[in-house]
Amino acid sequence: MELFAVPDLPEIRAGDDLAAMIAERVDLRPDDVVCVASTVVSKAEGRTADLEEFPAGPRAKEIARNLEEISGDEKDPRFAQAVLENSTDVVMEEPFILTEAPFGHVSVNAGIDRSNVPDHDLLLLPERPSQSAERIHENLPESPPVIVTDTSGRSFRHGQRAVAIGWAGMPASRDWRGETDRDGHELQVTVQSVVDELAGAANLVSGEGDGGNPVVVVRDWDFGDHDGSDNMFREMRRDFVRQALRDWEYEP
Amino acid sequence: MELFAVPDLPEIRAGDDLAAMIAERVDLRPDDVVCVASTVVSKAEGRTADLEEFPAGPRAKEIARNLEEISGDEKDPRFAQAVLENSTDVVMEEPFILTEAPFGHVSVNAGIDRSNVPDHDLLLLPERPSQSAERIHENLPESPPVIVTDTSGRSFRHGQRAVAIGWAGMPASRDWRGETDRDGHELQVTVQSVVDELAGAANLVSGEGDGGNPVVVVRDWDFGDHDGSDNMFREMRRDFVRQALRDWEYEP
Ligand SMILES: Nc1nc2c(ncn2[C@@H]2O[C@H](COP(=O)(O)OP(=O)(O)O)[C@@H](O)[C@H]2O)c(=O)[nH]1
Ligand SMILES: Nc1nc2c(ncn2[C@@H]2O[C@H](COP(=O)(O)OP(=O)(O)O)[C@@H](O)[C@H]2O)c(=O)[nH]1
Ligand SMILES: [Mn+2]
Ligand SMILES: [Mn+2]
Ligand SMILES: [Mn+2]
Ligand SMILES: [Mn+2]
Repeated sequence: MELFAVPDLPEIRAGDDLAAMIAERVDLRPDDVVCVASTVVSKAEGRTADLEEFPAGPRAKEIARNLEEISGDEKDPRFAQAVLENSTDVVMEEPFILTEAPFGHVSVNAGIDRSNVPDHDLLLLPERPSQSAERIHENLPESPPVIVTDTSGRSFRHGQRAVAIGWAGMPASRDWRGETDRDGHELQVTVQSVVDELAGAANLVSGEGDGGNPVVVVRDWDFGDHDGSDNMFREMRRDFVRQALRDWEYEP
Repeated sequence: MELFAVPDLPEIRAGDDLAAMIAERVDLRPDDVVCVASTVVSKAEGRTADLEEFPAGPRAKEIARNLEEISGDEKDPRFAQAVLENSTDVVMEEPFILTEAPFGHVSVNAGIDRSNVPDHDLLLLPERPSQSAERIHENLPESPPVIVTDTSGRSFRHGQRAVAIGWAGMPASRDWRGETDRDGHELQVTVQSVVDELAGAANLVSGEGDGGNPVVVVRDWDFGDHDGSDNMFREMRRDFVRQALRDWEYEP
């Protein structure tokens, strides 16, 4: 298994055809996996925005006020408004805003980026990352699977790592149910979220800075002969962490 | 960047010298990263155990009784006892047992495995995985960095993916603080947990089944010119998810 960045990608602009730009730069194979940072998917889809587009309502003002108090830093209530308008569920408001995006992904500040965004204040997540992945997948020569990634925190741990927020041309997970371990016993770990592991692998090459490597090709990796599952985002009713956080109150 | 499994590793037994077994099978380079599944580290360290070693006390009996009621499946109270005895903090007891290991990792059932364990009921996590990694790192020719991995769930998401539970010879994370994005602005994502991303990448090759590939070498990956951080496991006082889960009560 091998990973390499698609070389020499320029700054991505609204309307750019990512599939064509990738195809010009690498010879893809049908069993490659193409991992694309959400930041360039959003740019190509024109998901830039400015704070002035989000005049703050009372809830956003209150959230910003509370966050300001907690952090001691100035907080723009329009940013809180942008987060609220790009979320379908608010999991917690303090000491940071954690919400669910319309497509199911739970992340801080609705995944809105303020790094690597020229000429605008904000970059919103793609509206439907799996549909974005599907479009790139269909338009790439050889139609390899495509994963849209973002960098995200993880409970119980410090730091951030990439996850898959959309995918097409492959299942999200290997389903090992019914398979056996080395001793013929039923497996304990049954659903391996390979799109998350692929996203993390690609991010080792992309990095978080000015490297300019938003697209990484994974070559000679084999999904293998397993069932697949696309069930990734927990629904609220079965999500204990979300339920617990909803009931919880931050005490500074 | 390239990943490959160390070929032909046998069933690992207590007392085996993993470093020597790896060194016999691959020519390592100093800038490789060697990812080792915790399951074989535990086997080599003799961390197998049997249920009869964990006569259940009243708390374990109660936990097992509750889990039995919730799941409708039979639950061995001795297993709950094993989990309790291998944990320093119980985050939640239902609908599954989530605890903190003595070395700080939070996982279901204290990471105790019942897959890929011959001749015994249980395989406990290594007692100090970073010390295990350090020993392997020091004993390998060329002393490449070593990561000990385990497969683990993730909040808000279905399925499981590998994480790093111990590491040596490299920092856990790239610290991007003070670096800038493509437009010269301060970065938003500042701490990239590369050991987790490396663990996930390696697990794409290892898998969860009977593949027999517990050790994966990552070649030609570059940590790069960044500061490093080893701060991985959140302490309880600053861990909001843990605080929330502690206060929360499962309602079937
Ligand atoms: N070539 C190119 N690289 C970009 C562009 N925007 C971001 N990047 C790079 O893409 C990678 C991921 O950027 P990041 O801001 O972490 O994206 P995110 O994780 O999807 O939010 C980094 O290597 C950036 O330097 C762009 O428009 N063009
Ligand atoms: N060669 C060899 N492979 C093993 C042994 N035990 C487990 N494996 C393999 O190691 C990989 C990871 O196993 P898994 O049970 O998921 O380990 P964990 O994620 O560390 O709990 C799989 O490919 C297993 O088949 C062993 O003793 N010898
Ligand atoms: Mn992002
Ligand atoms: Mn990123
Ligand atoms: Mn395990
Ligand atoms: Mn595993």
